[in-house]
Amino acid sequence: MSLLTIGTVAFDTIETPYGKAEMVIGGACTYISWAASYFTKNIHLVSIVGDDFPQSELDALTARGVNLDGLETVQGGKSFFWAGRYHNNMNSRDTLITDLNVLADFNPILPEAAKSCKYVMLGNLTPQIQSQVLDQLDGSQKLIALDTMNFWMDIAMDELKSVISRINLLTINDEEARQLSGEHSLVKAAKVIHEMGPKYLVIKKGEHGALLFHNGDIFFAPALPLAEVFDPTGAGDTFAGGFMGYLAKTDDTSMENMKRAIIAGSAMASFCVEDFSLDRLRTLNDTEINDRLDKFKDLVHFDFK
Amino acid sequence: MSLLTIGTVAFDTIETPYGKAEMVIGGACTYISWAASYFTKNIHLVSIVGDDFPQSELDALTARGVNLDGLETVQGGKSFFWAGRYHNNMNSRDTLITDLNVLADFNPILPEAAKSCKYVMLGNLTPQIQSQVLDQLDGSQKLIALDTMNFWMDIAMDELKSVISRINLLTINDEEARQLSGEHSLVKAAKVIHEMGPKYLVIKKGEHGALLFHNGDIFFAPALPLAEVFDPTGAGDTFAGGFMGYLAKTDDTSMENMKRAIIAGSAMASFCVEDFSLDRLRTLNDTEINDRLDKFKDLVHFDFK
Repeated sequence: MSLLTIGTVAFDTIETPYGKAEMVIGGACTYISWAASYFTKNIHLVSIVGDDFPQSELDALTARGVNLDGLETVQGGKSFFWAGRYHNNMNSRDTLITDLNVLADFNPILPEAAKSCKYVMLGNLTPQIQSQVLDQLDGSQKLIALDTMNFWMDIAMDELKSVISRINLLTINDEEARQLSGEHSLVKAAKVIHEMGPKYLVIKKGEHGALLFHNGDIFFAPALPLAEVFDPTGAGDTFAGGFMGYLAKTDDTSMENMKRAIIAGSAMASFCVEDFSLDRLRTLNDTEINDRLDKFKDLVHFDFK
Repeated sequence: MSLLTIGTVAFDTIETPYGKAEMVIGGACTYISWAASYFTKNIHLVSIVGDDFPQSELDALTARGVNLDGLETVQGGKSFFWAGRYHNNMNSRDTLITDLNVLADFNPILPEAAKSCKYVMLGNLTPQIQSQVLDQLDGSQKLIALDTMNFWMDIAMDELKSVISRINLLTINDEEARQLSGEHSLVKAAKVIHEMGPKYLVIKKGEHGALLFHNGDIFFAPALPLAEVFDPTGAGDTFAGGFMGYLAKTDDTSMENMKRAIIAGSAMASFCVEDFSLDRLRTLNDTEINDRLDKFKDLVHFDFK
């Protein structure tokens, strides 16, 4: 099935205790699309870049099966740029620079083929732009997922709640779930958020894994304990991309298949953090992915005879 | 198989956002023994109390199959007392009072029958007292587990490392694992701690679950997401008691059975936090425990066809 991905395509400069990577490829939509491309080749990307964005990177996405008809290139414009520095524990980071550049005028126009994509992943953007995308869909979608962050809860809560009321699945982290719901217990937070609209809620807890809530059921996916986390940038988006790519491939939104999709997303995220930028995602193969899925099984499976 | 439990038997005064419980029954050894008693009736408790400790509580332990020959009662003495207040998020707490009382002179003497217990759970105490207990064992043990805390790492690291070198399994939390090993990554921390002696390491992460490390293998047990955590006091000890009780019952230290034991411990801990003190642990039955084990299975099991 077809997957529509919307979000930033950008440059990042990243400092971690392991080193510095300057002006490397980043952006939520880039990570989502690369991760999803290991599961489906029917991907439509909608985003905006300046003419500074390398053609070779666009060619690499096309080669992965990503249709770029919805990518606007602004001549003379500069692509979105983010710079951040991770602390020693890798769990927290400081944003050093956020240059919106061409993103400031992003007015997404969906190509005809993108309007009927059955699976939609709205990466983190202003709630207004996310709403604009929803306005253009043809109504035939099977699952619309949306990612957001505390920043929009701080400055645009009403607009955020409005767009959240129109989607099927929300992905946020644990602190954001608490902020959005006003409940400390994640079980209670999930109930409040379900009432806002999304029937599915994925709470991302970073190194502590992720929780899927649906209709009173809870599924927990662990994060793989790693000896080294080299660069966490993009891990959440890679998780979302693997998750939605797996759903688009299998076209099955039953709870049992959602569980497999969450594990697929977690596996892709565990690769993402092993190197700077997209570097680890560029070279994966099916054997490596299947071996990683087996590791997740070994990590949590038990059997009371 | 027989289980030896050593640690505090005490009074607690606990304040949580849900209320206050004054001078209720507490102590690591109490929680460990109660939790273990749902799996084995062959338990030897070694501890110390003052003559203020209620006979009815001792009778209740005896009724659960706990042999109290190793419990010293100091006439005219007062039992160990701890008072603490939990913050709103329940993840952190302030210690308000710690009165060692009779614990200041605890000099554990193992009854003959206790010396040959095949499974030993050393609750959190000074490393010196934990060593004294090890000195009295007859050497026939199948698994010796030890719990400790950051306090002993701060003031008695050498003595702690000495006792750790003599045991098979260490239980500590994630921050303590980092402090003990000097490594931030828990995978690396486990390698360092294995080299200190324990072949098995259990890292407790509270609401984020627990990890078991052994011989390069990692198993992750989730915590059950709960709508209400009423009182977290004793959850870690209840976890250890359920874990060791299950091992003593099954007498099987294979990795596959260790996984089941970790889940059993996690299930018992999930009951513990549902009420103040031991109250939830007093009234459990096998059906409730088996239902809870099923919930853990539902929470993490997935299957790639």
